[in-house]
Amino acid sequence: MPDIENVLHNIDDNLNMAVSKLFELISIPSISNEPSREPDIAQAANWLLRELSSVGLVAEIIQTKGHPVVLAQSLSGLEEKQKRLLFYGHYDVQPIGDPEQWTYAPFKPELIEDGDIKRFYGRGASDSKSQLWTFIEALRAWKSVNGEFPAEITVVLEGEEECGSPSLPEFIQQHREDLACDVAFICDAEMWSPTQPAITTQLKGLFHERVMISAPNPDLHSGHYGAVAANPIRILSAILAGIHDDRGRVKIKGFYDDVRDIPDALRKQWHELSRYSGLFDGVELSGGVIEEGYSALEAMWGRPTVDINGITGGNQGPGERSVLPGTATARLSFRLVSGQEPEKVRASFRRYVESLIPDGCSVVFEGISGSSPVVLSQDSAFLRASAQGLEAEWGQPAVLIGTGGAIPLVQQFSEVLGADCIVIGFILSTDAIHAPDENYDMERLRKGARSWVRIFKEIQQMQ
Amino acid sequence: MPDIENVLHNIDDNLNMAVSKLFELISIPSISNEPSREPDIAQAANWLLRELSSVGLVAEIIQTKGHPVVLAQSLSGLEEKQKRLLFYGHYDVQPIGDPEQWTYAPFKPELIEDGDIKRFYGRGASDSKSQLWTFIEALRAWKSVNGEFPAEITVVLEGEEECGSPSLPEFIQQHREDLACDVAFICDAEMWSPTQPAITTQLKGLFHERVMISAPNPDLHSGHYGAVAANPIRILSAILAGIHDDRGRVKIKGFYDDVRDIPDALRKQWHELSRYSGLFDGVELSGGVIEEGYSALEAMWGRPTVDINGITGGNQGPGERSVLPGTATARLSFRLVSGQEPEKVRASFRRYVESLIPDGCSVVFEGISGSSPVVLSQDSAFLRASAQGLEAEWGQPAVLIGTGGAIPLVQQFSEVLGADCIVIGFILSTDAIHAPDENYDMERLRKGARSWVRIFKEIQQMQ
Repeated sequence: MPDIENVLHNIDDNLNMAVSKLFELISIPSISNEPSREPDIAQAANWLLRELSSVGLVAEIIQTKGHPVVLAQSLSGLEEKQKRLLFYGHYDVQPIGDPEQWTYAPFKPELIEDGDIKRFYGRGASDSKSQLWTFIEALRAWKSVNGEFPAEITVVLEGEEECGSPSLPEFIQQHREDLACDVAFICDAEMWSPTQPAITTQLKGLFHERVMISAPNPDLHSGHYGAVAANPIRILSAILAGIHDDRGRVKIKGFYDDVRDIPDALRKQWHELSRYSGLFDGVELSGGVIEEGYSALEAMWGRPTVDINGITGGNQGPGERSVLPGTATARLSFRLVSGQEPEKVRASFRRYVESLIPDGCSVVFEGISGSSPVVLSQDSAFLRASAQGLEAEWGQPAVLIGTGGAIPLVQQFSEVLGADCIVIGFILSTDAIHAPDENYDMERLRKGARSWVRIFKEIQQMQ
Repeated sequence: MPDIENVLHNIDDNLNMAVSKLFELISIPSISNEPSREPDIAQAANWLLRELSSVGLVAEIIQTKGHPVVLAQSLSGLEEKQKRLLFYGHYDVQPIGDPEQWTYAPFKPELIEDGDIKRFYGRGASDSKSQLWTFIEALRAWKSVNGEFPAEITVVLEGEEECGSPSLPEFIQQHREDLACDVAFICDAEMWSPTQPAITTQLKGLFHERVMISAPNPDLHSGHYGAVAANPIRILSAILAGIHDDRGRVKIKGFYDDVRDIPDALRKQWHELSRYSGLFDGVELSGGVIEEGYSALEAMWGRPTVDINGITGGNQGPGERSVLPGTATARLSFRLVSGQEPEKVRASFRRYVESLIPDGCSVVFEGISGSSPVVLSQDSAFLRASAQGLEAEWGQPAVLIGTGGAIPLVQQFSEVLGADCIVIGFILSTDAIHAPDENYDMERLRKGARSWVRIFKEIQQMQ
């Protein structure tokens, strides 16, 4: 019977140090989809290499075609029956968007008292630097108290999650022996509420698509030619406005062809959940159009969507300019559910767009790699052990949820490694991930780290 | 009988010097709607002050609430029966837009041989620095040969034309005695073709409008909330896509209420013109939607339009970002015809937009000052004299045309000064005004300047 009280105390006692270390990591602007940030990505990887080594893992940086992966292993050579646990996190972050919209500096975290809560702000504060830090801190404390790790450990920290993990499939293939494990914990997901933990068993697929419409002319004077020549913004607006009907359904031909509807049992399970709060804390739904026939939860977790993430064309200001622009561009993302295949949906979308391009105008698509939707088993011993560990820490049962987010590697881990995948994280809707003033709090970091310790104990007790 | 041959020769002989001077002016990036360019605006005004003084005019810089006006007068104290001629031009230019789209540097003009044509590129090369330079060069040559000006001369050079001339109405009111004249030449307009001059007698009104849609939330993660929360880009796209029907008619309620249809006589006159070419040289109309029931020319000159000049929202790149944006903004301009009032049309547009804003979302409008449409008399002795002068220079009759462009001051000059307004210019559709690689050519500068000399002669001979 492992005694974990000393490990939990060790985490509590070292909390200030853990936060201070985490702030070092958040201070590195490791934005993965801005080429100029490559040195920051490298710095973050090196910083993690040092930290994982100091915890007692054998760590290395593995270059890929894109950003490097930090791989660390316990290599303890312990008895065969030892379980093999893999932890996945990502150290890259989203761009900050418009800096004017941030109240706090995105890469200079400090503790801010917010009532009883000690909060900190920064890009990556929640997604996902605090997440990976929970299991590194748990491993550190366990090793420090017990002199050894709770199991054979592999840690995989990726640097390209926020741009769709393009290099990960090849990395997993090439290192599948290093990565062999009984269970892979993917630590990049939500809690159900500030007080109730969750395990995510249903994830959407995802692909991005960039669409640039060009008129036959470069920029023209709109006073002279606005009445007669093509305006790419007008064409693009019609394309975007035509994607949805007013019941929230996607009108692209074939979009729903392969969609498996949410199974009744799951609908019932999610309906039960609806009595809890938390998921929409701080988020105002008015003005949104939820697909007719589905609850907000069902639409988020179980129905495919098309989202417009960005648009740009013509005069961007500051002043006015009477221009008929030569081009207009939109960026979209597609969230897919069971049954849908990214490339098939992408092809439907492109056919839809092409059907609306007038003679003389043209369209260029730029497709960004996709991932398929994933449904994980709700019937796994590791899942039960994890749920018990989470409940022990939080005092409330862990609920099984879906997510609108995508974690492409879950599918790859399942398929290539044949491991159980358990998706657990401690993110809340109020963390403003991917948005200005992304934030996290000290207490959640503490309880997140302690959760892993309790899960370790449950796993050690598994038959 | 004035002998103008020496004056014309003087212009020919001094052409290289005139071009070299003009290049100095084009090199000053006097962009009127970028606040950071204020020093350049001041520099352009000072440069013109010096040039007008050296021509023999008494010049001063007059500050306004916006950018300064350069005012210059002959003040010769000649006999009362001397005609009073006013020349208007503007020294401000449009922003350059995306610098990547320029083949030539926008503010470093040089002569480029293009077959027989000596062309130069730069923002303002055509609109409107070459235009104002034609009459300054004509005045210089006349004074230099004859020792005096051909009439009492007033020159008004504005620095805010490209942002709607906000300070001009007050300037005209305050200086109406200085500006008193028999005829005002507005030199900022098109020729009919590279070989045929034109006089513009019909101008559209214009106002700009900026529309920002806000969701109730700041930026959100689109994977999590795209299925349920409002997306301002989607709302804005629907608004923009709903402005026109597929016959090119504007669907905004009340938009056509006060529109006077093009008089039959004018339609006939314009129809006669259609056999000439030139206006659409270098412009491809495929993909454009011309209002049903009207020719391209009628739509450009005689029908009101709504143009989308710019749009921006959410992720602007370079990489992808799964963001549900908090705001989206469009910039539009409205081109009005006889009968329409800018503020009334603006109000109709705002009502239309407001009717499409869902609960919980909001819209902020920023209106930029408007001007009314203008129809000038085709029956004026000055117009006849001008037409004769133009024909003498170009060897083809001057045609009477309309324009989709707006020159707000025309209305103000007519109303406040009670002067005849004659709109003449030497711009071509291939000049790429308001667009990348704006350009002009040396021969047109020469013949433009010579045209004014011939017009001076005709005016001196008027009874």
